[in-house]
Amino acid sequence: MVIVMVPKAKKSQIDKVINSVKKDGLKPHVSKGEERKLILVIGDERKLNLDHIKAIEGVEKVHPILKPYKLASREVQKEDTIIKVDHLKIGGDSLVYMAGPCTIESEKQLIKIAKSIKKSGAQILRGGAFKPRTSPYAFQGLGEKGLKFMQKAKKETGLVTISEVMDTHDVDLVAKYVDILQIGTRNMQNFQLLKAVGKVKNPVMLKRGMTATFDEFLMAAEYIMSEGNKKVILCERGIRTFVKYTRNTLDLNIVPVLKEMTHLPIIIDVSHSTGIRKIVRPMARAAVAAGAHGLMIETHYSPEDSYSDAAQTVDLDEFKKIVKETQAIENILKNMN
Amino acid sequence: MVIVMVPKAKKSQIDKVINSVKKDGLKPHVSKGEERKLILVIGDERKLNLDHIKAIEGVEKVHPILKPYKLASREVQKEDTIIKVDHLKIGGDSLVYMAGPCTIESEKQLIKIAKSIKKSGAQILRGGAFKPRTSPYAFQGLGEKGLKFMQKAKKETGLVTISEVMDTHDVDLVAKYVDILQIGTRNMQNFQLLKAVGKVKNPVMLKRGMTATFDEFLMAAEYIMSEGNKKVILCERGIRTFVKYTRNTLDLNIVPVLKEMTHLPIIIDVSHSTGIRKIVRPMARAAVAAGAHGLMIETHYSPEDSYSDAAQTVDLDEFKKIVKETQAIENILKNMN
Amino acid sequence: MVIVMVPKAKKSQIDKVINSVKKDGLKPHVSKGEERKLILVIGDERKLNLDHIKAIEGVEKVHPILKPYKLASREVQKEDTIIKVDHLKIGGDSLVYMAGPCTIESEKQLIKIAKSIKKSGAQILRGGAFKPRTSPYAFQGLGEKGLKFMQKAKKETGLVTISEVMDTHDVDLVAKYVDILQIGTRNMQNFQLLKAVGKVKNPVMLKRGMTATFDEFLMAAEYIMSEGNKKVILCERGIRTFVKYTRNTLDLNIVPVLKEMTHLPIIIDVSHSTGIRKIVRPMARAAVAAGAHGLMIETHYSPEDSYSDAAQTVDLDEFKKIVKETQAIENILKNMN
Amino acid sequence: MVIVMVPKAKKSQIDKVINSVKKDGLKPHVSKGEERKLILVIGDERKLNLDHIKAIEGVEKVHPILKPYKLASREVQKEDTIIKVDHLKIGGDSLVYMAGPCTIESEKQLIKIAKSIKKSGAQILRGGAFKPRTSPYAFQGLGEKGLKFMQKAKKETGLVTISEVMDTHDVDLVAKYVDILQIGTRNMQNFQLLKAVGKVKNPVMLKRGMTATFDEFLMAAEYIMSEGNKKVILCERGIRTFVKYTRNTLDLNIVPVLKEMTHLPIIIDVSHSTGIRKIVRPMARAAVAAGAHGLMIETHYSPEDSYSDAAQTVDLDEFKKIVKETQAIENILKNMN
Repeated sequence: MVIVMVPKAKKSQIDKVINSVKKDGLKPHVSKGEERKLILVIGDERKLNLDHIKAIEGVEKVHPILKPYKLASREVQKEDTIIKVDHLKIGGDSLVYMAGPCTIESEKQLIKIAKSIKKSGAQILRGGAFKPRTSPYAFQGLGEKGLKFMQKAKKETGLVTISEVMDTHDVDLVAKYVDILQIGTRNMQNFQLLKAVGKVKNPVMLKRGMTATFDEFLMAAEYIMSEGNKKVILCERGIRTFVKYTRNTLDLNIVPVLKEMTHLPIIIDVSHSTGIRKIVRPMARAAVAAGAHGLMIETHYSPEDSYSDAAQTVDLDEFKKIVKETQAIENILKNMN
Repeated sequence: MVIVMVPKAKKSQIDKVINSVKKDGLKPHVSKGEERKLILVIGDERKLNLDHIKAIEGVEKVHPILKPYKLASREVQKEDTIIKVDHLKIGGDSLVYMAGPCTIESEKQLIKIAKSIKKSGAQILRGGAFKPRTSPYAFQGLGEKGLKFMQKAKKETGLVTISEVMDTHDVDLVAKYVDILQIGTRNMQNFQLLKAVGKVKNPVMLKRGMTATFDEFLMAAEYIMSEGNKKVILCERGIRTFVKYTRNTLDLNIVPVLKEMTHLPIIIDVSHSTGIRKIVRPMARAAVAAGAHGLMIETHYSPEDSYSDAAQTVDLDEFKKIVKETQAIENILKNMN
Repeated sequence: MVIVMVPKAKKSQIDKVINSVKKDGLKPHVSKGEERKLILVIGDERKLNLDHIKAIEGVEKVHPILKPYKLASREVQKEDTIIKVDHLKIGGDSLVYMAGPCTIESEKQLIKIAKSIKKSGAQILRGGAFKPRTSPYAFQGLGEKGLKFMQKAKKETGLVTISEVMDTHDVDLVAKYVDILQIGTRNMQNFQLLKAVGKVKNPVMLKRGMTATFDEFLMAAEYIMSEGNKKVILCERGIRTFVKYTRNTLDLNIVPVLKEMTHLPIIIDVSHSTGIRKIVRPMARAAVAAGAHGLMIETHYSPEDSYSDAAQTVDLDEFKKIVKETQAIENILKNMN
Repeated sequence: MVIVMVPKAKKSQIDKVINSVKKDGLKPHVSKGEERKLILVIGDERKLNLDHIKAIEGVEKVHPILKPYKLASREVQKEDTIIKVDHLKIGGDSLVYMAGPCTIESEKQLIKIAKSIKKSGAQILRGGAFKPRTSPYAFQGLGEKGLKFMQKAKKETGLVTISEVMDTHDVDLVAKYVDILQIGTRNMQNFQLLKAVGKVKNPVMLKRGMTATFDEFLMAAEYIMSEGNKKVILCERGIRTFVKYTRNTLDLNIVPVLKEMTHLPIIIDVSHSTGIRKIVRPMARAAVAAGAHGLMIETHYSPEDSYSDAAQTVDLDEFKKIVKETQAIENILKNMN
C-alpha cells in the first residue's frame, strides 16, 4: 500500500500514520518524494485497517497494491477450478448450457422443456421456485412444490439442476432438492445469505450485482469461500447503465479479465443481459467467442405464455440453434490452438 | 397503458394482444394511428401481466400510464405520513437529525456520543450492531451485545434509536432493542427481508439501492407496506456513477420529486453520499435547503479512531455546526412561506 | 405520440394541448381513459414541437411512438448500405479490418506498419494526425505532415486510409489526403462538425459518444446524412460506466440492435472499448460473433514505444492472430446459414 | 507517481521502467516491497509519458500522485479567481444570477425578459443564438441576428451578457457581441474550440461534460488557460446516470470539492440538471446552500411558448421567488461565519 500525504503534511500527522501501520503489524517506509511525503507499507496490507488510515488528517489518498480477495485469486490457486456435479464438469475447457423456464409453472411444463433442451445439448436445467419480483403483487413462485418438480425433472432426464435461493431460511430446503444454488443479482451483497450458502455442500452460482465492480464481485465469492464452500461459479448478467433500449448492458470485457484474476468458472446469462429475445443468439455467440465457460438462457416451448420474463425467453428451436452455433465457434477456436 | 404495435402488424398479432388484455379483465381500444396501430388499455393496468404483452410477436413497445405502486403514492394518500416515535415526529414539517457512530464499539463510546449529539440537537441515535462489510475478514459488528448498548443509551439520554437489520432471522431481535429498523442499500431489493420488516410494529427506514430508480425505490417501500407496516421512512444515500472522487453521487433531485410522488418522509444520509468528512456540512445544508425531512450523519468523538467509515465521520463539534447551520436555513425558509 | 394528462386535468389544459397539436398540422384524438385523459396524435409526430407540449401545465408525460431519425432508419431504407472505397466494400456481408498506429509518428513507422497489416489481411490503415488529448501539454499530432505520410502509405500499399478530423476548419484538408474521415467520440455531438463532414464526398466513420444512447447515436448520423452525405459508418468504442478496471465497457448489445434499426454498417473499435492489450483478441472474436461489419484495432510493431494509447495497442503478430481467429468465426457462421 | 510491477516481474522489465523514467528526466526509486516491486518516481511526474510506462510488460498499475492540471489548481494559485465584467464580480464571496430564455426568439422577447429579471436581481442575461439541437430538423437559433438582440438588451438594461459558441469559426463573432462566451456540455472536450476561446479576452463559462470526471473538467479548463485566458468560470449542469425521471442528475458534491481543488468560480445550471420546472426552486436553494458562486436559470415570461427547453423554463414570478429564497440562505450563512 502507498499512503500519499497532502503537501506540507505535519510531522505529527505522518507519525500518526506510521504508528497506525505499526500497530497493525506492518512496516512503514517513508519516501523522499519532492512535493509530498509517501508512506510505503511493507507486508500483507490486507491486515491494515484502511478506514483508520484514510481518516487521519493529512492523508490525501491511499493506493492499495494487493487485491482484497485471496481464496478467489489466481495468486492462491493457479489452476482452473473445475466443479463436478454428477458426471458434468463446469469450468476449465468445458462449455456448459443452462436452460429452462424463468419460473416453474407446472410439472408438465418443466418436464416438457427439460426433455427438449437435453436433446438440444443442454446439461443443466434452470427453473425459478422462489422468484424475486419487483412488485409485491406479482406471482412469487411455487416454492417447495416447484423444487419437487425440479427433482422429478432431474429423475426423468438426468439433467443437473439449478434454482435460486433468496433467504437464509430456505438454503437447506433448496439444497435438498436441487444440485446448484443460485444467488440472484439483488442478493450479491446479502452477506448473511452468502455465509449461509458457504456452509452447504452444493455448488453455488453467484450472479454479479447490477453495478458491482470486478473486485466487489470477487469479494462476494470470497464470502462464500471463506465459509468453506469452494465450489463457486460466477455469472455475468449485464450491468445497469444509462442505456434503456436493452434491459441491461452485457459487459463481456469481464470474461477475459476474470479469467486472469480468478480460477473460478464464468457463465454468461444472455437473457437478462439483453432482455430481448431476438438478440439472445448473437450475444450467446459473442459470449462463447470471448471465452465464457457456459451460458444461461431462459427457454420455454411457448415464450409468450411464460409466467415471467417472457420478452427475453427463447423457444426450443431457437435454443437448439444457439447451441449449434456456439458449439461451432467453440470447436473452431479449440482446433486453432 | 398504451401498447404500440410494429408497422404492418398482422391482424392475428393484434387479436392476441386484445385477447390477452381482455383475459386480465380490462378493456382494449384499438386506435386509428397512421403508421402503426396503438392499443389503449382502459381500467387498472396494474392487473395486466406486462410480461405476456411485451412478449407477443408484433408488439414494439409498451408505455405504462399508471405508477406501479399504490400504498406509497400520493394518489392513495394525499396528506404527509407523520411517524411518531415516543414524542418525536418524523415527516411533515419536522426536521430530524440522526447521528452516532457507524459501528457500536463499546457502551462507553456509544453513551459518550449519545450525550453529546443530544445536546447539539439530535433526536435519534444511530449505531451499527450488524455491519454489512464488503470483506468477510472485516469486523462484522457486536451483534446483540451492541443492541443492548443502544437500549442503555436510550435509557440514559431519551434518544430514539435506529439500527440496521440484515437478515430475516434477526428482525425480531433488532425490533426488541431499538425503535427504528434500518434496511441497508444492499438489501433494498432483499424482498424476503422487506416482507419480514413489513410484519413488525417498528418504523422502518429504507435506504435507496445504489442504482435504484425512483420507481424501484417506492416499490421496495410498497413491499413493506403491503405486509401491513405503513411506517416507512425513505433514505437517499447517494448513487453509484462514473464519479470516483466522492464515494457516491448525492442525488438531491430526488427530494422534491419524491415529495410529489409519495407521502412518506425523506431523509438524507450525508455521510455515505459524500464519503468525505469535509464536504458533509455543505451537503447537509443543501439537503435541508432542498426540503429533506431529516439528516443522517455518522458522528464520533474521535473519527480517526472509529472502527469503520472513519473518513466520512464528523466529530462532535462539526456535528454541532451542522445542526446550527441547517436549522438556520430551515427557519429562514419557514418564515418566508 | 401519446400525451398523458395528470389525473383531473382541467379542460382548459386539454384544450391547450389540442390546439398546440392542431397548430403543428396534426390530428389530436382524446381517449376515454379512466383515471386520466390520453391524447393520441395522428400523423407524422416528428413535426410536433415536443418542447411545447411537455411544457403545458397538466401534461404528465409524453410517449413518442416514432423514431426521431429518418434517413438512418430501416423504415426509409430496407437494404444494407454498402460503402465502396476503391475496390473495398464496407457493410453488408463484408468484414473489414482497420489497423494501424494510434498516432502517426513518422513516414517510416507508418509504412512499416501498413505493409505488415496488409499482409495479415487488413484493408484499411488508420493513423492519427490530429489527436484529441485530454491534456493540453501532451503531443497533439503531426497535422498535415502526418496526413501526407498517410497518402504515401496508401500509394505504397494500396490500403484505404482513415484519419480523424477534429475541427470544421480542417475538414477539407483531411478529406484531401485520406479516404475516410473519422469523427471521434468527444465530437459525436459537435453539430457544426457533423454538418461540415455532411458536405464532403468522403465516407465518414462516426464514433459513438461516451454516453450516447442508441437514438442519439443515430441522430448524429442523421445530422451528417441530412446534409447529403449518406456514406456513414457507425463505430462502437465502449461506453463510460462505473467500471474502472477496463478503460470503457464494450456494449456489444448495440450490434444486433443497430442492425435492426439502421441500414448503416457497424464497426467495433476493440482498442478503446477495452484499453487492455491482452483482452483485445477475445473481444475482437466476440464482436465478429455478434455480427459486426468490421474491427478497428490499434497496431504497432513496438507497442511499448508508441506515442499514445500504448497500453491498448497490439503488436503485428497479435494482429495477425486476431485476423485469423475472427475470420475463422466469420466463415463458420456463414457456412451455417 | 508509484509504478506497481506484477509479482515476479523480470529484472529486464524493471530496467525498462527505470530507463523510461530517467529518459523523461525524473528519478526512479525502487522499493523493497515484499510481494512485488514498486518504483517511486521523484520529480514532476507530469513530464512522464504515462502511456509508455503503462505499456511496458510487467507493469501492473500506475498511481499518479500529482493532479494533471496546474494553472487551474489551488497549488498554483491559492486565492479565489474573481472575474470582473463591467462592475460585476464573479467568484469569491459574490453570488451571481444568470437568467434568460433558452433560445433568443425576438428582440421584443429578449428585452421583456431582460427587464424583468434585472428587477428581480439578476446581473447576467443568458440567451442562445447558436443552439446545439439533437435533431438536425429542429430550429438551430437566430445566429448573428440573435447576438445583436443581446447587444441591444445590454444597452437597454445594463445587464452583462452570455451566449454559447459552438464552433471555432464563430468565436470572434460571438466575442464581439456578448461579454461571456459559453462552451456547452457537448463541447467540453472539443479541444480546438477550447484553444480558440483561450485566445480571446472575454471570460469563458465552461459547462461540465455529461460524464466528465472532476479531473477531466479541470483539464478542459486548463486547455483554455494554457492559451492565455485565465478568466474561466466552471458550470455544473447535471450528469447522465441511469435515472430517467429527471433530465440529468445534479451532482452538488462537486461544489465543495472543486472549491478545494481550484480557485475558479463554480456556477450551477439548475435548469438542465433537473429538466423539471417544479424542482428548479428547491435545487437552486440547495446549490446556494452548498456554496455555489452563482446560478444559471432558464427564464421566460411564458415558458409554455418558449422555442426550446420549455419544460424546465420557469416564469418571471418563479424566478423572483428563487432569487429571494436563495439570497435569504446566502445572507443567513454569511452572518453565521
